Amino acid sequence: MLIRKKDDEGYTRKTFVNLRPMKEKKRPLILVTNDDGYTAKGILNLAQIASKFGDVLIVAPDKAQSGMGHAITIHDPLKIQEIELEKGLKGYSCSGTPVDCVKSALHGLSDRRPDLLVSGINHGANFSINVIYSGTMSAAVEGALENIPSIGFSLLDYHKDADFSESRWVVERVIEKALSEKFPEHTCLNVNIPKTNGEKLKGIKVCRQGVGIWQDELVKREDPMGNPYYWLAGEFKEMDKGQDTDIYALKNRYVSVVPTQFDMTAHQHIPTISNWEL
Amino acid sequence: MLIRKKDDEGYTRKTFVNLRPMKEKKRPLILVTNDDGYTAKGILNLAQIASKFGDVLIVAPDKAQSGMGHAITIHDPLKIQEIELEKGLKGYSCSGTPVDCVKSALHGLSDRRPDLLVSGINHGANFSINVIYSGTMSAAVEGALENIPSIGFSLLDYHKDADFSESRWVVERVIEKALSEKFPEHTCLNVNIPKTNGEKLKGIKVCRQGVGIWQDELVKREDPMGNPYYWLAGEFKEMDKGQDTDIYALKNRYVSVVPTQFDMTAHQHIPTISNWEL
Repeated sequence: MLIRKKDDEGYTRKTFVNLRPMKEKKRPLILVTNDDGYTAKGILNLAQIASKFGDVLIVAPDKAQSGMGHAITIHDPLKIQEIELEKGLKGYSCSGTPVDCVKSALHGLSDRRPDLLVSGINHGANFSINVIYSGTMSAAVEGALENIPSIGFSLLDYHKDADFSESRWVVERVIEKALSEKFPEHTCLNVNIPKTNGEKLKGIKVCRQGVGIWQDELVKREDPMGNPYYWLAGEFKEMDKGQDTDIYALKNRYVSVVPTQFDMTAHQHIPTISNWEL
Repeated sequence: MLIRKKDDEGYTRKTFVNLRPMKEKKRPLILVTNDDGYTAKGILNLAQIASKFGDVLIVAPDKAQSGMGHAITIHDPLKIQEIELEKGLKGYSCSGTPVDCVKSALHGLSDRRPDLLVSGINHGANFSINVIYSGTMSAAVEGALENIPSIGFSLLDYHKDADFSESRWVVERVIEKALSEKFPEHTCLNVNIPKTNGEKLKGIKVCRQGVGIWQDELVKREDPMGNPYYWLAGEFKEMDKGQDTDIYALKNRYVSVVPTQFDMTAHQHIPTISNWEL
């Protein structure tokens, strides 16, 4: 609408006035990262969905960084390059870990504080104890540390060409709620999505982290020169019969959502250790 | 005592019989690891002290692995070599992370289950949120996962030649208690020792993990060819006024001991997120 109004000196000028409310909120800024590297199919899906809700800034590892846990790069410099996943989905690749990516974004690469951090969609499971080994989730935990609403998404399919189509509504739903509801402080969400093989998901369950462990084996091999080398290989073993766990939800074709925090104190054992009279 | 007894075929033979009780307990096996690498001064001090209490098996990184958090090596094989820190203090170096070292020890290198795992003595602090970035503590957490009594020790002195003399009684005291008292299941201890500059420590306090964060900065440099590279540098900022924290204890010249666990569920926020009606 074209209107006339007086400027500071009293002159009337033609001015275009935006009819939208003056205090219209900026689109939220959504920081997108992962641990499979910026070329993974999962992060492209995640960035596409995030872009429906806000401006997207991608800062992701320049190579696969699975199993990096909460590792950070201390003794080496980082290489950072501009990237564009597809039109409008821009950001940076970083030679460091997922946590390095989050730190670099928040303390240098982003010109404003993100309203939301999303990590993933991981190619592979991050439920139960996997949360502690996962680069995807460590990025989200780093976001929580900075008190930014943060969510890690993982699909229970390790394949490079995993099918993310059934994951998309889940990611949309959780992002939409994260932006519209009050997000608990210093917390992130660990979202795992079952592999459905064409079947529909049953729904979304809020859970606790189920108890489980990797039963590992140290496998010895010899290189062509006769020198030994080793692989750590393992199988996940669940040790929790509870029906309120992520393990149970995923087994029953539900998406699991575990609110996740970073206080590792075993509060219940403070009295026990105090009684040792150290 | 020399006695005669019949063998399986009925022949009487001279046999030496051990006069000690038949069911005498073996010396405990103590697994020793760290994140500064097996050549660090801290692990030598720790292994020396541990050897007073039991048989020692060292499995430690072959190079510095600080800040590796709970990282594990998935896509690369490991190199493992026999080492001897000094007479009687033997084990293996491993090309992987501290958690890889623990996994390799428990699932291949050790012929029996350790009775205790000790990690450190770290050259540098691991109190407050540092627990999550720390390779030293992640090794201890991995031990806790396997339900082995585990302790991470850290001295608040980053120097290669840090003075561990005042740390030795602390390590002795905690190991002695860990072996004699009932150790809580699936738990480890995060022990931080102040740098005293010659003064005496005031004692040992059992604490919770204090709230703090690293305020990071992404520092840009240029290499001689004009290409940019970056360093993540930061300062620790405490955000906790509590007197029951590790931050408070260390400031007041006490050793801090935080019982530490690996359930990252934010249990208090399960109802909040459930109310989102995902």
